[in-house]
Amino acid sequence: MAQTPSIPKGTRDFLPGEVARRNYIFNTIRDVFNRFGFQQIETPAMENLSTLLGKYGEEGDKLLFRILNSGDFLSGVHEESLQKRDTAAVLRTVADKGLRYDLTVPFARFIVQHRNELVFPFRRYQIQPVWRADRPQKGRYREFFQCDCDMIGSDSLLNEAELVAIIDEVFTRLGIRTVVKINNRKVLAGIAEVIGQPKRITDITVAIDKMEKIGLEKVKEELSEKGIPAEAIDRLEPILLLQGDTAAKLSLLREILAASTTGMTGIAELERLWDYMTRFDLRTATELDLTLARGLNYYTGAIFEVKALDENIGSICGGGRYDDLTGIFGMPGVSGVGVSFGAERIYDVLTLLNLFPPQAEETTQLLFVNFGPAEEAYILPLLAQTRHSGLRAEIYPDHDKMKKQLNYAHRKAIPWVALAGEEEMAQQKITLKNMTTGEQMLVSSAELIKVVSGAGKISEL
Amino acid sequence: MAQTPSIPKGTRDFLPGEVARRNYIFNTIRDVFNRFGFQQIETPAMENLSTLLGKYGEEGDKLLFRILNSGDFLSGVHEESLQKRDTAAVLRTVADKGLRYDLTVPFARFIVQHRNELVFPFRRYQIQPVWRADRPQKGRYREFFQCDCDMIGSDSLLNEAELVAIIDEVFTRLGIRTVVKINNRKVLAGIAEVIGQPKRITDITVAIDKMEKIGLEKVKEELSEKGIPAEAIDRLEPILLLQGDTAAKLSLLREILAASTTGMTGIAELERLWDYMTRFDLRTATELDLTLARGLNYYTGAIFEVKALDENIGSICGGGRYDDLTGIFGMPGVSGVGVSFGAERIYDVLTLLNLFPPQAEETTQLLFVNFGPAEEAYILPLLAQTRHSGLRAEIYPDHDKMKKQLNYAHRKAIPWVALAGEEEMAQQKITLKNMTTGEQMLVSSAELIKVVSGAGKISEL
Repeated sequence: MAQTPSIPKGTRDFLPGEVARRNYIFNTIRDVFNRFGFQQIETPAMENLSTLLGKYGEEGDKLLFRILNSGDFLSGVHEESLQKRDTAAVLRTVADKGLRYDLTVPFARFIVQHRNELVFPFRRYQIQPVWRADRPQKGRYREFFQCDCDMIGSDSLLNEAELVAIIDEVFTRLGIRTVVKINNRKVLAGIAEVIGQPKRITDITVAIDKMEKIGLEKVKEELSEKGIPAEAIDRLEPILLLQGDTAAKLSLLREILAASTTGMTGIAELERLWDYMTRFDLRTATELDLTLARGLNYYTGAIFEVKALDENIGSICGGGRYDDLTGIFGMPGVSGVGVSFGAERIYDVLTLLNLFPPQAEETTQLLFVNFGPAEEAYILPLLAQTRHSGLRAEIYPDHDKMKKQLNYAHRKAIPWVALAGEEEMAQQKITLKNMTTGEQMLVSSAELIKVVSGAGKISEL
Repeated sequence: MAQTPSIPKGTRDFLPGEVARRNYIFNTIRDVFNRFGFQQIETPAMENLSTLLGKYGEEGDKLLFRILNSGDFLSGVHEESLQKRDTAAVLRTVADKGLRYDLTVPFARFIVQHRNELVFPFRRYQIQPVWRADRPQKGRYREFFQCDCDMIGSDSLLNEAELVAIIDEVFTRLGIRTVVKINNRKVLAGIAEVIGQPKRITDITVAIDKMEKIGLEKVKEELSEKGIPAEAIDRLEPILLLQGDTAAKLSLLREILAASTTGMTGIAELERLWDYMTRFDLRTATELDLTLARGLNYYTGAIFEVKALDENIGSICGGGRYDDLTGIFGMPGVSGVGVSFGAERIYDVLTLLNLFPPQAEETTQLLFVNFGPAEEAYILPLLAQTRHSGLRAEIYPDHDKMKKQLNYAHRKAIPWVALAGEEEMAQQKITLKNMTTGEQMLVSSAELIKVVSGAGKISEL
């Protein structure tokens, strides 16, 4: 008992300031999602393992947190499995449930299960924690939040444009300058097709990505080392050398990919998307980026990735179009497109760039100092009045020394302190003290509310 | 795969309307907590089992969800335990972590762990889910939310009064008429003391509780059957017959308990609390209720319970004063007082009494019908404009039949629909349709925003 208690590795406690700043991010994202007509859903922390297993690859299965069955969990285990200490076999019997690993698989399960209660096209968002038994390391946790929004049941590219508008609105509100990088899986497939290497999409994106760093000759060498024939590399060269803005690139790609139906569809999709985007009043830069290859075995059309311009921290938002979210649960042909905001990284960017607004901390605005029973009786109706007027206010609960009470206000970063002793009570007033400037003045309750709420200044009274 | 997927028993998915209504409750409670100077903290879903075990009694230990250790979880298990299928012994080795069972024990752990980072007296609140492997039944779930607020590190009875003021504010805002029942553990101990039966507190509260239903004679019979001596029952009689308002009861109790120091302290505390409460502008009835015995082996002073007046659904909020929250983690002598709001039952009361306000549903306010590419180009800037003005708006993403699009608006309960075809485009206007009344009118974009935001009426244009 003497030893200080702790929490499981990779998990975190959040202190008041952290929770307030995290809420600022979640509330901003939530408000934008609502503004765009998205509706929030929630799913349970636990899912049946039959829902989760096999959806994240072999590695993912290993990273699932499994929940031990209640009661005599060993009863169903075969004698032989126990004797052989066959972990895999025992595992199949002792745990039926696991913790949510992401929000996508539970969402797919949700759609199939509730398809008759939902209105399609369905715009849903979900902000909940997920759990992964990853090796904990800097910036990687075993419990973290995901913020996903998806549009389900519509092929329209208007949906892709709406997602970019959402990204634009979220990061504009947060004050983070970003660029939205956009690619299309069909264009990548088209490139692979026209150079005669339909299965080498990843190698192609890696090669394009390296152009700036190592130059054309080195890139060609590497491609050759990876076994891509010289002829294919030659055909890839104009794509490696692709320069200019998005319009210029699209126009060149249109020539290069003319022989690939898939590629041409991808270009048409990108052009349509860009056309839609110009009609929104976007404040964020957008650019075609052929190196974008996230979720390649998953996304079928648009691929998005958002980077902060002023902090090199990787992707802070990403997503794309998928064509068969729910097939695995027996409901094929449901197309959707979505993005996920990385709340943890956004938190880091806002911290590093000092972008959290002061009002993100919802701390007490006004503390009433407590001198004793008579003063309490005078203060309590005032306290109720300030709260009814919308202020966050409290009274120090004990009759401690003034210094201790002011120290409490200081440590809790409370900007205003109200003092009422004999003199104030006789005059039916309160002394109001600005904890930052030290300024203080005798005021009425109406004046106090006006000043603390920011509607007036002490010096103007 | 053909079979419809499902979720673990006792857990729930929440559809958009439910999430919106739940958020309305959480946001109301959160806003009141903030208004009273409370600060939010969060703790991880998983705690070390060493933190959780032994804190909820033997029954509670069985109801903990345990998380299987990652990797080769069987490796540390003794051969003998496996062969004997000794569930308890195996359990101790294969799982080190469990899911949070309530918010109180993690909070105690949090205080001890972060004591040097916190400002005392500490006003914290926490709104998070907890998990219990209870047998699922109507109204009882394996995953549910708790909303707790506590003041730690102060003995002042002002804290108790503040909690009643919080209860008053929360239920006034929610529109639920309630009564706050208040008792004091010290008064109960005093009663048991003066009748010479210090260990029979529970029997005494049960007896008082039954007075109205079965009458004095039957109650005395039952007490006698439980082995309480005739003399003690005689001494209890004036308490069983206690009538009148709280002031009258307290005055009589003061006489009856004169010989018990503990009892007299309890009465003084109640009187002080009532005195404080009169100074807040409470709109909720409060009453002394000697039958209140919740958390008897836990609470040391005030005990609270809130009942809805218009729906018989049990307690919707409760709490009390405790003197040694953190002693079990090696930090003795920390007094605190807190209450917990039962969000699930509050949801049921609001539903049964039809008290959810329409705005609790944060659904889309305005849908733009989508007639085709030319109309989209006309609408998109308008859509951006309505959103920038603060409206929740969307455009139907596909060029489906008008009827299908209006049906989408109807099913999603969107109150306003905007239509823009050739005519509207020629006049630079939009037809705005009220989905409830069927009323429609040609308007400018400024008029549209005015009407949909509720700042003007169609008929006034």
